[in-house]
Parts: sequence; structure tokens; C-alpha cells
Amino acid sequence: MAMGRLVCVRRAAAVLRRCSSTGPPPPPLTVTVQEGGIRKITMNNPQKRNALSLSMLQSLQNDISYEADDMNLRVIVIAAEGPVFSSGHNLKEFTSAQGKEYHAEVFNACVKLMKTIQTIPVPVIAQVNGLATAAGCQLVASCDIAVASDRSKFATPGVNVGLFCSTPAVALGRAVPRKVALEMLFTGEPISAHDALLHGLVSSVVPEENLETETMRIASKICQASRSVVGLGKAAFYKQMSQSLEEAYKFTSEVMLENLSLKDGQEGIEAFTQKRKPVWTE
Amino acid sequence: MAMGRLVCVRRAAAVLRRCSSTGPPPPPLTVTVQEGGIRKITMNNPQKRNALSLSMLQSLQNDISYEADDMNLRVIVIAAEGPVFSSGHNLKEFTSAQGKEYHAEVFNACVKLMKTIQTIPVPVIAQVNGLATAAGCQLVASCDIAVASDRSKFATPGVNVGLFCSTPAVALGRAVPRKVALEMLFTGEPISAHDALLHGLVSSVVPEENLETETMRIASKICQASRSVVGLGKAAFYKQMSQSLEEAYKFTSEVMLENLSLKDGQEGIEAFTQKRKPVWTE
Amino acid sequence: MAMGRLVCVRRAAAVLRRCSSTGPPPPPLTVTVQEGGIRKITMNNPQKRNALSLSMLQSLQNDISYEADDMNLRVIVIAAEGPVFSSGHNLKEFTSAQGKEYHAEVFNACVKLMKTIQTIPVPVIAQVNGLATAAGCQLVASCDIAVASDRSKFATPGVNVGLFCSTPAVALGRAVPRKVALEMLFTGEPISAHDALLHGLVSSVVPEENLETETMRIASKICQASRSVVGLGKAAFYKQMSQSLEEAYKFTSEVMLENLSLKDGQEGIEAFTQKRKPVWTE
Repeated sequence: MAMGRLVCVRRAAAVLRRCSSTGPPPPPLTVTVQEGGIRKITMNNPQKRNALSLSMLQSLQNDISYEADDMNLRVIVIAAEGPVFSSGHNLKEFTSAQGKEYHAEVFNACVKLMKTIQTIPVPVIAQVNGLATAAGCQLVASCDIAVASDRSKFATPGVNVGLFCSTPAVALGRAVPRKVALEMLFTGEPISAHDALLHGLVSSVVPEENLETETMRIASKICQASRSVVGLGKAAFYKQMSQSLEEAYKFTSEVMLENLSLKDGQEGIEAFTQKRKPVWTE
Repeated sequence: MAMGRLVCVRRAAAVLRRCSSTGPPPPPLTVTVQEGGIRKITMNNPQKRNALSLSMLQSLQNDISYEADDMNLRVIVIAAEGPVFSSGHNLKEFTSAQGKEYHAEVFNACVKLMKTIQTIPVPVIAQVNGLATAAGCQLVASCDIAVASDRSKFATPGVNVGLFCSTPAVALGRAVPRKVALEMLFTGEPISAHDALLHGLVSSVVPEENLETETMRIASKICQASRSVVGLGKAAFYKQMSQSLEEAYKFTSEVMLENLSLKDGQEGIEAFTQKRKPVWTE
Repeated sequence: MAMGRLVCVRRAAAVLRRCSSTGPPPPPLTVTVQEGGIRKITMNNPQKRNALSLSMLQSLQNDISYEADDMNLRVIVIAAEGPVFSSGHNLKEFTSAQGKEYHAEVFNACVKLMKTIQTIPVPVIAQVNGLATAAGCQLVASCDIAVASDRSKFATPGVNVGLFCSTPAVALGRAVPRKVALEMLFTGEPISAHDALLHGLVSSVVPEENLETETMRIASKICQASRSVVGLGKAAFYKQMSQSLEEAYKFTSEVMLENLSLKDGQEGIEAFTQKRKPVWTE
């Protein structure tokens, strides 16, 4: 069904402009399809292990931010083509020839993407099937929810090439216990999907053949909720997590009142007391 | 044995005054028994799934705070009658007819209860056998210790009725990894007792038939300790958790010295060096 | 091979000076050997359950801090002789006869040691085979990485002798979920190596016969990395963990640029693009 489907022609065109070759344009770095409220963004550069080059970071940024306030968008899924979810930064962008300013531009684009994932008003789910390393592991850690196949692995191996995964450590260190984070950062060795679940880096692990189904099941469940209520809740969650318990309760009590005054908040309570299904309108 | 037993007549009377019916008074919302230092508070409204209505919140507040400084009180257990530990707020209290001021009163009573659990000078144990949802899940997350039967489940399903579990998220987000919290909050789906243990929401899980025994074993162990030492330690724990490592060590080093200067602190060291059992007096 | 081996004669002499006996000097409290970049410090007072007496704390402090900036030092391992890793403070140092000033000196030495472990520019690994209690448990929690044998156990039993483990709670509370920490602190009961792994207190658990091999494997892996890169990364990790997400990303993005400007940072990227092994020089 083509209805509601969004093909990112914009970006394919942008990629095309960059190329000076006269051959056919390269395939787009990401392929995005939106249907029934679910926007699925697939990293599409398997031959480069879906490296988070500056172009890939910008492509993800565009696909995530694109009409983010559209009522038809309810949840975003980030997936990947090929056996590697993402290998992180493209190290060729970090040579001294590229220069410090360019390096800074890459890091800024990366940080911007990770923050956008948490500030955008719809949940973002990582659907991981394979290896996620360095900034690729950071991308998984930065999503709201992460579903992984049992063959997935996670690592922060920057130390092996003399570039400690310090920005990935921000997300990793807030996702798993400190000792697990430091063993990963100091040795560069991967942990299994099972250990990633054990330590909180992902929220569920399923057999590879069930990955798509399970991710879509979670995404569909989220689509049944009120968009405004989910958006209010997501923003409140991240804000209160950085507050003291005292401040957090003060703030979220106000959020609860605000939630009740939303049209969908009132509809929800009314539907509940009338024992009928709610009809969300915002 | 009736000795040391505290039957909350006060509250049964209060409930009675509220009713304008001429029939027999309704059963009290909570039943509290204290024996051998252990105060067990049982939520007693199974037909309403032990909803945390304003009355229930106040009833719990009273039972927890009642003579909290009494030397005979060493530990509090919160349990529940019926298959649902607690279903959280009574949504009928959130209709627009009830009004914003009443809503605020409910949230304030809820926050007050959760904070009291952590500021009261004796440990509070949740004994969970069944479903704990929304503010009921928050209640479990807010206790110092939580023992659950293997049939227990935990959820924050407010999103289903258009009221995101933002206040429960304060406690949940500080108890389990972020991704687990957000998957629960965004989907409203329950996690098993096993997963609750895996992710730190409860501290132990036992077969249903052992729940009472295991909870009482832990409670009895706590009764063997000095009340003043436990009180000092509990207050220090929560305070230092919100501090930087530097501040936390500075503060707790002073607490250790204060602990050593307590009568029970000196008795403990003396008994240890004399290879005898300590006799606590405070 | 004796080359690069460091035998701590200094300290053995210091211990000797303390003794007024004319018999042979007591064995040193810690035995330290350094080889191939790995400094292994073994607590060597099994008959006193490797208690963290003031002398033991100072001995560890000296062995850890000794020529910490030497290029030949890449990683530190803390191990122990005998069935008890460490039983924590020597309670005989806490009698009123010893006096409050002495008590304060012990706590200060303990805090200094725990902080040094995190500020020293090389990773510190706890190699635990047996029981680690109170400040001994704190020592494990304070190391960057902890490998434990499956027979190890962890406890904070100070409450049993009237001295709540408030300083160990600083490290424990930052390593495991709050409920697990509080159950340990309030009951004093030990948790198994398996549960310590489940809850993040240690980063791996292996059969006793593999403990040495696994610890050395991790240590050797760390020795293959650039010392300056590891040092930069370790310092950045701890600093950013106490910052807000916003600050943390701002700070670590600068650290990444600084890392790239290091000699070893440039060598790493160059070696990667040239598909050869990097040669670290700093």
C-alpha cells in the first residue's frame, strides 16, 4: 500500500548533487518508509558497514526531523541493511588532512542526532540485527527503546585505533553499569545481545527471525496511544531524570495535571468511566 | 498473641464518619498489625484492586507515620489482599467533575506517601504478590526493599487511558535501566517478576508459597540490628545518592564518625572485640 | 623474567620500622610485582582476612600511586591471598581507646584510596576470589573493572556490629540498583558472584580455575592500547558521568578533538587508513 508512504527523494537528490561522477546516482544512504504512523528509517550502506559518516549522520537527522510534528507520525524505527547495524564514525573523516574543523563538524552532527532522538516528541526504537560499534553503539544507547536479535553484538572499540570512545561513553555510561561500560571502553571487546539485555543497553532480545515482528508489535502498540500524551510523557521523562527526587516529583505532578487538561487526557478518563474505547484527536 | 498488636481503630472510625449510610461500616482500607518490631500494613480493598484512592493514600500515610519514632517499631512491610497488589490511582477521582484542585490533592498525597517511605527512619519492604500497576508500581519502586512472588507483574499502563505515568516514572526511572522504563511507559505492557528482578525493580523473587516467609525472614533480620544505626544509615544513604562522589564521601565519612559515637555504635565495636553478642539500647 | 619486576622493598622496610620486636620482620601487607605493563598488587594478610587496617590502606595507596606516570605502567590488578579478598576495616581500630582522631584518619585514608583508584591514569582491575565485605566490597565497587571467581561473595555487614556501611554505600549505591544496595546494607547478608554480575557490581564471573587467566587476558588487552589515549578516556569517563547530558556531550566532543590531536591519536587513524598495526609512543 503506497498510501502514507514517504520516499525520501529529497535526500537522494542531495546525495546526487554531491557526486561529480556522470554515472548513475549512488543509492541513498538511508531509505525511509512511513505507513500507519510508523516511520521506518533503514541505514542503507552495508558495504561501508553503515558507517556514521557526516553524510549518514545528516541523512538520519533529516529523516528523523522531517515533519516531526505531523499528526500521522507516531513512532520512528531505526534499522539497517546488512550484517552490521553501524560501525560508528568513518575514521577516514578523522585524518589530519581533513582538518580539525571538519572533525568538529562530524562530532557536532553526531551529538545533534543523539539529542534529537531524545527531544523529538515520538518514541524512537532501534531495531538491531548485527554488530553495533562505537558511535553505532551510541546510537542504540540513545534510542528510547532497543530491540535486538540474538546475533547482535555491541562494542566501543575506539581504543584499538587510538581514539577512545568518549562521546559514545556518554550514552553507554548512562545505559549500563559503570564496570560493564569501562570494561567495554578499555578493552574494546564486544558484549553479546544477552549481556546487553542483562545490563540494560537494549530492552528486549528476540531470535533473528522474530526481530521485525517484535519491533513492529511494539511500534503498533505505541500507535494506539494518544500522540500528545506520549509526547508530553516523553519530554517529562527525560527532564525529570536529571532532577533531584524533590524537584522531579514537583515537576511531574504538574505534568500530570497538564496531562489531565489535555483533550486526549479528558477523553481517556471519560472513556474509562464509560467503559468504552477512547478516541484520540490530538 | 495480642501483645504489641496495633489495630488501627482510629482509621476504621474515620472511614465510618465519611459514610452516610446506616448499614455496617465498610471494612478499613488498610489493616495494620504490629508484632515483634514488624509493622505489617495490608491494603484491604481487593474488590477495587487496592486502588490508591485519596482515602487509601491517606490510610497508608497514617499507618506508616503512626508513632514512627517508637523504639518498638523496627521495620514496615506493605502487603495487599487479593490478586492485585495495587492498580494505582482511582481514575474516577480524575474526572473533570472532580476538578483540578481535587486532582492536585490526590497527586500531592501520593508524592507525600512516596517521600515518607524514604524519609521514615525504619526500612520499608514491599511484599508483592500479584499485579502492581501505575502508582501501584511506583509504590513498589519507592520502597527500600521489594520481595515479589514469581506470579507478580509490573506495569505503567497510564498511556492506555491517556494519562501518561509521569509521577510513577520518577520512581521507575530511578529503579530500572532507562530503556526498560521507557518501553514500559510507552507500551503500557507488564514485565514479569523475573524481569523486574533482572532490572532492579525488586530485590528478590520467590515462589508464591514462600513469599510471606522470605519477607518475614528479611524483616526479622533487620529487627536484630540497632534501630538508631539503621535509621542513621538509611538517611545517609538517600542523602549521599544525590551528591557528587566527592561530597558523598565527605558526608558519609562524617556519618561514620557520628555512628561510632552513638551508644549502639560503641556497644557494637566493644561486643565485637569482646567476642560477645551486642545489646542494643537505642 | 625478572626484568621490569618491582618488589616493594620500601614498604617492607617501613613495616619493619613500626615493629619494636627483635624477631624477623612481619611479611609485607601487600606484595607487588610489575611485568609487561601489568602491576599486580596482592593483599597479603590472609590470617587477618586482608582487613583494610590503616597500614593496609596506606600500603595499597603506596603501591597504586608509586610511579603512576611511568610509561611502563599500563594497568593495575588488585588481588588477595587466602579465602577472603578483604573483610573491610579492622574494627579494633574503631574502639573508643583509639580515639576519634584516629578513626577519622582511617576513614580519610580509605576515601583517599578509593578516589585514587578512579583518578590514576591507568585502569584498575579487582581480581576477586572469595569474600569481599564492607570496605572490602567498597574496594571492589571502586575499581574500574572487577573479575570475580564464581565462589566469591559480597556483603556490607557493618549493621551487624552497629556500624552501618555508610562509606561503602557510596560506591555500592553507584554500582548496583538501589533496592539491591539497601537489602545488602539493611540485612548485612551476602550476595553471590552471579547476583553481583546480574546487578553490575562486577563485570565478569568465571570459574575459580580461570580467574587468573581471565584477569590477565583483560589486563594484556589493555596493555595493547595507547597509554595516553586510555588515560585521557578514563579521566573523561568519570568527569562526564557527573555532568548533565548537555554538558557531557559538549565536554566529550572536545575530548575527542584533543584525542585526535594526540600523537597516538594521529598514529591510530593513520595506521587504520594504511591498514597496518599502530605503533604507540606515548
